[in-house]
Amino acid sequence: MTPRLLVTGGTGFVGRPCVNRSAARGAEVHILARAGQGERFHAADLFHAQRVGDVIADIRPTHLLHLAWVTTPGEYWNSPENERWVGASLALLSTFAENGGRRAVLAGSCAEYDWSGPGLCHEFETPLQPATLYGRCKSELFERAGRTRVSLAWARLFHLYGPGEHPTRLVASVARSLLAGDPAECTRGNQSRDFLHVADAADALVSLLFTDVTGPVNVASGSAVPVRDVTRLIGEVVGRPDLLRLGARPTPSGEPRVLFADVSRLSGEVGWRPRIGLAEGIADAVSSWRNDRMAA
Amino acid sequence: MTPRLLVTGGTGFVGRPCVNRSAARGAEVHILARAGQGERFHAADLFHAQRVGDVIADIRPTHLLHLAWVTTPGEYWNSPENERWVGASLALLSTFAENGGRRAVLAGSCAEYDWSGPGLCHEFETPLQPATLYGRCKSELFERAGRTRVSLAWARLFHLYGPGEHPTRLVASVARSLLAGDPAECTRGNQSRDFLHVADAADALVSLLFTDVTGPVNVASGSAVPVRDVTRLIGEVVGRPDLLRLGARPTPSGEPRVLFADVSRLSGEVGWRPRIGLAEGIADAVSSWRNDRMAA
Repeated sequence: MTPRLLVTGGTGFVGRPCVNRSAARGAEVHILARAGQGERFHAADLFHAQRVGDVIADIRPTHLLHLAWVTTPGEYWNSPENERWVGASLALLSTFAENGGRRAVLAGSCAEYDWSGPGLCHEFETPLQPATLYGRCKSELFERAGRTRVSLAWARLFHLYGPGEHPTRLVASVARSLLAGDPAECTRGNQSRDFLHVADAADALVSLLFTDVTGPVNVASGSAVPVRDVTRLIGEVVGRPDLLRLGARPTPSGEPRVLFADVSRLSGEVGWRPRIGLAEGIADAVSSWRNDRMAA
Repeated sequence: MTPRLLVTGGTGFVGRPCVNRSAARGAEVHILARAGQGERFHAADLFHAQRVGDVIADIRPTHLLHLAWVTTPGEYWNSPENERWVGASLALLSTFAENGGRRAVLAGSCAEYDWSGPGLCHEFETPLQPATLYGRCKSELFERAGRTRVSLAWARLFHLYGPGEHPTRLVASVARSLLAGDPAECTRGNQSRDFLHVADAADALVSLLFTDVTGPVNVASGSAVPVRDVTRLIGEVVGRPDLLRLGARPTPSGEPRVLFADVSRLSGEVGWRPRIGLAEGIADAVSSWRNDRMAA
């Protein structure tokens, strides 16, 4: 039987490539988001339980990929919206289960982990000690969603980049500045993170969805790379390394020096590994923003 | 003028691919080692200054790649031989300079850095605080060699693996066990290191040699990967993941959880980046040991 998949946040940065990947795998893909259009697009606000219930009763999805959340850069870390998303997500999951839903993947975050450790985050070994409201709410949802009868995996996403990224986020903002011929004011960049191209992340999420692996699963590259390597790669790809101002902004305090994922579960149990190397991924992202500029 | 290169330790794990790479670039390559044979092979013990002097006066090398050192696994960390190598290396460098030598690359090590930091090692920002005699002697040579009139780069190597690796080292020993159908007793592997295939390392060293970049330069991949990812890759490539015994051995105490290189100098100034990904590199190494077994 063709799986019927409902993707929340299916018009967003991560959602869009997930829709493409799951459609390419032969799923009947429905999108639920606040606004958009198309044959299998369902306009609904996840805070309106009645409307969500009607949509789900109508589609009767077998699979759910729940990506919607408050994600506005600068705001989402401590927005009170985070708390409302816990309730809305639990209501969505119940409605999905009541209407015959069998398998769900929900988006968690590396922000759930204790950031004061050595940097490598493992699903079961690293303590959950979120430093932000965002991390605490994701972690609370993880705990409460685990009580459902649906087969559920909790995908902890690390640092994603790529086409469709919000223009104020790291890779997008540096690339867009350089493409515009403007200097990019950066930190020194000696903090290291786990970078994954969003198309790889989508492929991993969809792969995870169509397994029966349950519980928390880090979705990441599995290696730590200094932020300044990434900004320098952008400089090279754009051909304007001269516009990089490393050290012009202070490194945010309270952020870990090194943060990356142990991907044992993702590679061992899901059988998934990244396909897009950093240099290739950055080149792809820069190319998409260059096209945006030319189309504008 | 064709560069005349002298490689010490040119028959070893790192030396052999360096000889191949520099010959491929058109250099006239001479090898100095204790034992071996060939047209441009010079048998000499680096502790015999007179013999070394004769060889160098005869060749009059323009370039020097000094890789020889005590490297016996398990012994080299604290062997008193390390101290003798400081003197022998300084004598070699003087003789090279006196005979018209112009450019040298010497092999240093990540063991020179303070390992109690966050894990990312930068040539100028991370303190030199070697925890071992090996690290202290390398660091002492670095300081004393810097006073020469030769243009000198000091290549700090991190974790190398690949064909020719000593059979008791990590990647080689796990792969050889699995290829023999024997279980491989490993640590839990949640310590993360910077892994570089030896062919990439050789290419980087030779690239560095033919630039005029001076001072310390990390020669590494620039990313941290947990040791257990590497052992699992070996298990997959050999097709015997069932033989891996993760956690059978304790993680050595006193070793850092995360240790990797900032490769800003290598990528920015030398213009070199790794070409061999971890999965590809492990597959290549395993293939070489499989051939060894078939030839044996």
